[in-house]
Amino acid sequence: MTSHEASDLSSYEEHVLEQDTLRLWLRLLSCTTLIENQVSSRLRGEFETTLPRFDLMAQLARSPEGISMSELSQRLMVSGGNITGITDNLERDGLVERTTLPGDRRAKLVHLTPKGRIVFDQMAKVHATWIKNWMGQLTELEQHQLYLLLGKLKRHVSASLEE
Amino acid sequence: MTSHEASDLSSYEEHVLEQDTLRLWLRLLSCTTLIENQVSSRLRGEFETTLPRFDLMAQLARSPEGISMSELSQRLMVSGGNITGITDNLERDGLVERTTLPGDRRAKLVHLTPKGRIVFDQMAKVHATWIKNWMGQLTELEQHQLYLLLGKLKRHVSASLEE
Repeated sequence: MTSHEASDLSSYEEHVLEQDTLRLWLRLLSCTTLIENQVSSRLRGEFETTLPRFDLMAQLARSPEGISMSELSQRLMVSGGNITGITDNLERDGLVERTTLPGDRRAKLVHLTPKGRIVFDQMAKVHATWIKNWMGQLTELEQHQLYLLLGKLKRHVSASLEE
Repeated sequence: MTSHEASDLSSYEEHVLEQDTLRLWLRLLSCTTLIENQVSSRLRGEFETTLPRFDLMAQLARSPEGISMSELSQRLMVSGGNITGITDNLERDGLVERTTLPGDRRAKLVHLTPKGRIVFDQMAKVHATWIKNWMGQLTELEQHQLYLLLGKLKRHVSASLEE
């Protein structure tokens, strides 16, 4: 085999590898999008709310002490402008409130109101049954394998970003 | 064991199952979002383009014969309004064009221009190396397992929607 043939072969193998990983990524993306769209449409149909509102309330539910707007943006991985709009919206509906820390009027914390907590808990309960029904189609072993594989992928991607 | 205790136990087990499947879903979502955000920021940094523009061009690249707007919307799983805006934008940049079918002036097909094809191919090549670097952190066996597990999940979710 000449060196020219060897390089052709290896670039062909490279190409196959790329196609395989691309197919894997497209499947990861379409699987997530399928579930996300379904959650989104059911939240709209059953609770007249949107996925971004639900996600924001879920973050607040996990932090009863309140979260700053910048922390919220980071956790939700979207732009600050959107977060402000959604928060305004939820505040108007009496589901969240912004409070000022004593001694620092600039540092506002957002948290769920008692009404917001009740509304969120109701939605979260139903949301959990949707997810359980979908994920529960895999055996427990398969769920565990998927959990570990995604964990490994996530760690590797995060690590590669820090390099 | 009284029947009351038995029902407590089973509702506890139900709860654990729900928490496990919810954790699995959140990991699937965060893993996908991590990669998607990274792709989005690199497309912006290296090609001054956005992920929705890239995704739309990718669909057109796969269908050289052209796609109708409604088909594009379906494939990209977003609202028609967005697709129209992105298409207008790409058309203004000379990357895509709308053509009318002879005999049916209403049925417009969108496709890449020759310039659009060149620009897309360059981006797609670099995009494929990003994905290969991330996914390639898993062994080939792990990639294969992940591909099969996601396929099974996707099939089950799709099937449950048709019920």
